[in-house]
Amino acid sequence: MSQASRPAPLRLGIAGLGTVGIGVVKIVQAHADLMARRTGRMVEITAVSARNRNRNRSADISAYAWEDDATALAQRDDVDVFIELIGGHDGPAKAAVEAALRLGKDVITANKALLAHHGQALAELAEANGAALRFEAAVAGGIPVIKALTESLAGNAITRVTGVMNGTCNYILTRMESAGLSYETVFSEAEQLGYLEADPTLDVGGIDAGHKLALLASCAFGTRVDFASVELQGIERITIEDIRHAGDMGFRIKLLGIAQVTGRGLEQRMAPCLVPMDSPLAQLPGAMNMMVIEGDSVGQIVLRGSGAGEGPTASAVMSDVLDIARGTRGSTFGQPAASLAEAIPARAASPTPWYLRMTLIDKPGALAKVATALGEAGVSIDRMRQYDHTDSFAPVLIVTHSTTQDSIEHAIGRFALTGVLVGEPVALAIAAV
Amino acid sequence: MSQASRPAPLRLGIAGLGTVGIGVVKIVQAHADLMARRTGRMVEITAVSARNRNRNRSADISAYAWEDDATALAQRDDVDVFIELIGGHDGPAKAAVEAALRLGKDVITANKALLAHHGQALAELAEANGAALRFEAAVAGGIPVIKALTESLAGNAITRVTGVMNGTCNYILTRMESAGLSYETVFSEAEQLGYLEADPTLDVGGIDAGHKLALLASCAFGTRVDFASVELQGIERITIEDIRHAGDMGFRIKLLGIAQVTGRGLEQRMAPCLVPMDSPLAQLPGAMNMMVIEGDSVGQIVLRGSGAGEGPTASAVMSDVLDIARGTRGSTFGQPAASLAEAIPARAASPTPWYLRMTLIDKPGALAKVATALGEAGVSIDRMRQYDHTDSFAPVLIVTHSTTQDSIEHAIGRFALTGVLVGEPVALAIAAV
Repeated sequence: MSQASRPAPLRLGIAGLGTVGIGVVKIVQAHADLMARRTGRMVEITAVSARNRNRNRSADISAYAWEDDATALAQRDDVDVFIELIGGHDGPAKAAVEAALRLGKDVITANKALLAHHGQALAELAEANGAALRFEAAVAGGIPVIKALTESLAGNAITRVTGVMNGTCNYILTRMESAGLSYETVFSEAEQLGYLEADPTLDVGGIDAGHKLALLASCAFGTRVDFASVELQGIERITIEDIRHAGDMGFRIKLLGIAQVTGRGLEQRMAPCLVPMDSPLAQLPGAMNMMVIEGDSVGQIVLRGSGAGEGPTASAVMSDVLDIARGTRGSTFGQPAASLAEAIPARAASPTPWYLRMTLIDKPGALAKVATALGEAGVSIDRMRQYDHTDSFAPVLIVTHSTTQDSIEHAIGRFALTGVLVGEPVALAIAAV
Repeated sequence: MSQASRPAPLRLGIAGLGTVGIGVVKIVQAHADLMARRTGRMVEITAVSARNRNRNRSADISAYAWEDDATALAQRDDVDVFIELIGGHDGPAKAAVEAALRLGKDVITANKALLAHHGQALAELAEANGAALRFEAAVAGGIPVIKALTESLAGNAITRVTGVMNGTCNYILTRMESAGLSYETVFSEAEQLGYLEADPTLDVGGIDAGHKLALLASCAFGTRVDFASVELQGIERITIEDIRHAGDMGFRIKLLGIAQVTGRGLEQRMAPCLVPMDSPLAQLPGAMNMMVIEGDSVGQIVLRGSGAGEGPTASAVMSDVLDIARGTRGSTFGQPAASLAEAIPARAASPTPWYLRMTLIDKPGALAKVATALGEAGVSIDRMRQYDHTDSFAPVLIVTHSTTQDSIEHAIGRFALTGVLVGEPVALAIAAV
């Protein structure tokens, strides 16, 4: 394309200069010509904002105008696209995004919490003002899963989306297995390595991954984002023994998100699950993410990559920037916000085998009482195993035949009445992915 | 979106009603409303053509106008997008695509051979006439690899593209291993199952996969398609013993495409390689495809799915159709055809370990002569193994330390002078992916 025919540069304003923001700065500085060749338009950064102007950063930002306030940045006349990398589902991130959209400016965000809580309202605000609101970087870092769902697979009725979408949890579970360490030990390691959010519950409680699952479900099924209905279970109660037991039976434990629409409604569940050792999900190492998308025509597509970090997440931000540079602006969740259906939330109802681990008081008949409670709840036992122990508490492991989560919870309710259990059982679905 | 604001339907003409063509018909018939919700525009089929009008087909095509001639179809006034699913790099497919582009009609094709041979000229013709020419379905079936390279990862300098991109070859190699069968036996099975092209060399000779690699290289590196420079080696000489030897050493054999730009130029190589057992590539079963893309920001992205078949390939055709319905038309190879660089072809030069299998005349000193020839060629031996044998021919297997393809070929040239080899050695690179 000749210089003469090129449109004016696309001018970016970046709010938030942490890992991802600096990653975006570096890409724009390194690849301006490459990107102009690919899109026909130059991309440049005109202004930035962050909490601390004088912090030492690994990229030179002296050429850009500075704003102390993200909303002021979003409103600048010389900013065409506002890139929100502040984080948090309320406060300055939300205010600045709204300010940009009200002025009809395109917004790109990596903020899953913001969209999980306010996605519908923000998408409507964007459309009302003729602005784009895009978020490839908010889910699974560098993996192009939002574009895959909303564009590549748009000719499919999506039947299910499954994935490992929190790299920190995957790191913890992988490291527990490979080094034979306890959850507590690896958690401390992860904390020291800076892998955990300031509030670690966001990671290990499944909340961060749950935000992502809610966004994926909207794109996959054409429903309004409904984070409140995501069933959340964290990895805090997984022990090294669970990992070993699962391994003995040919499974690995992964924090797995599953979203699917059934006759009963939209199921969204984020919970540690057992997956067969030969599943691509089981083979996912360290801090990686993996998405498995199933569609009626395409069958199963698997996408794998780094779910976080400077380069991968900035790469995803640039995917949205470059689409806008080309004039491709799209709908936030793959179709106009007004046409997104109200989801009818349903509990995960598809029957699967379940893994149950519990501790019994070691006295005659204890195991029989548990088996009876399961039978009364309509749950049949595939395998049952009592482990060696030296004290008066007997660790017991049960794998059930296919049954529903409701039946499992019904059975667990009955366990309490037997008087032979110590503490709460751990119940993990065995997923067939 | 209200009905009133909707633009006129996007009218498709489909040439070729084989597996993929019928797949496209079925998606349009099943999901017209879903797709309209996602794109804001109805998609409909107005006319079709194929070799035999009266063939029994698994979809009802009676509502569509019929053309005996693909070029006549391409030129119809009621066709906005011409979908070419005829195949072949010359003849009616090429003529019809050119006719459509000359009239400024958008063209979508699944024809890798056509684009591998004429991609540059056709992309230029498309741009000269303001038409789009798109081919997501031509590479790796339902896997959205073209969109990933040209859009999702457009902020990256792509460093390497690697992949298993011929499902038939992957089926043959996987089945040989799992059933312990010879190449010849599994080849016959594949033939009977209808897995092979009419000319099976296209599959097992690596030509079909080589076409795909040339298209990927163009999208990844901004170079003109250069299929003539793809180094091709088929799987015909892989024996069950090779597969077993590789397995003993912790590797699997895969027909692997590798494209990368080095200081010497563009390397494009399609050849059977050994990959480590724990690589995602090694774990790819049956007729699946897998693409591994590496970029300077994103790191490594892995995409896996069905590389062929009615549903997956039709899904990829619809990805392009729906982009056009949305008004996203893009450049054929990710940037304007005139800006694509002339590739400087280079032989695969990155040093890797190599696997060599040969048969020696069983007499004293034979092995020493081979070892000496390797040393003279500057190739050092990591492992060497002579297998049991009952006749006078000794099967020998050598794994080298990292060395170049040139050195390996130099060594093989020297082997011929030793007078102790029976037949040609098999040489396979050991890839680190």
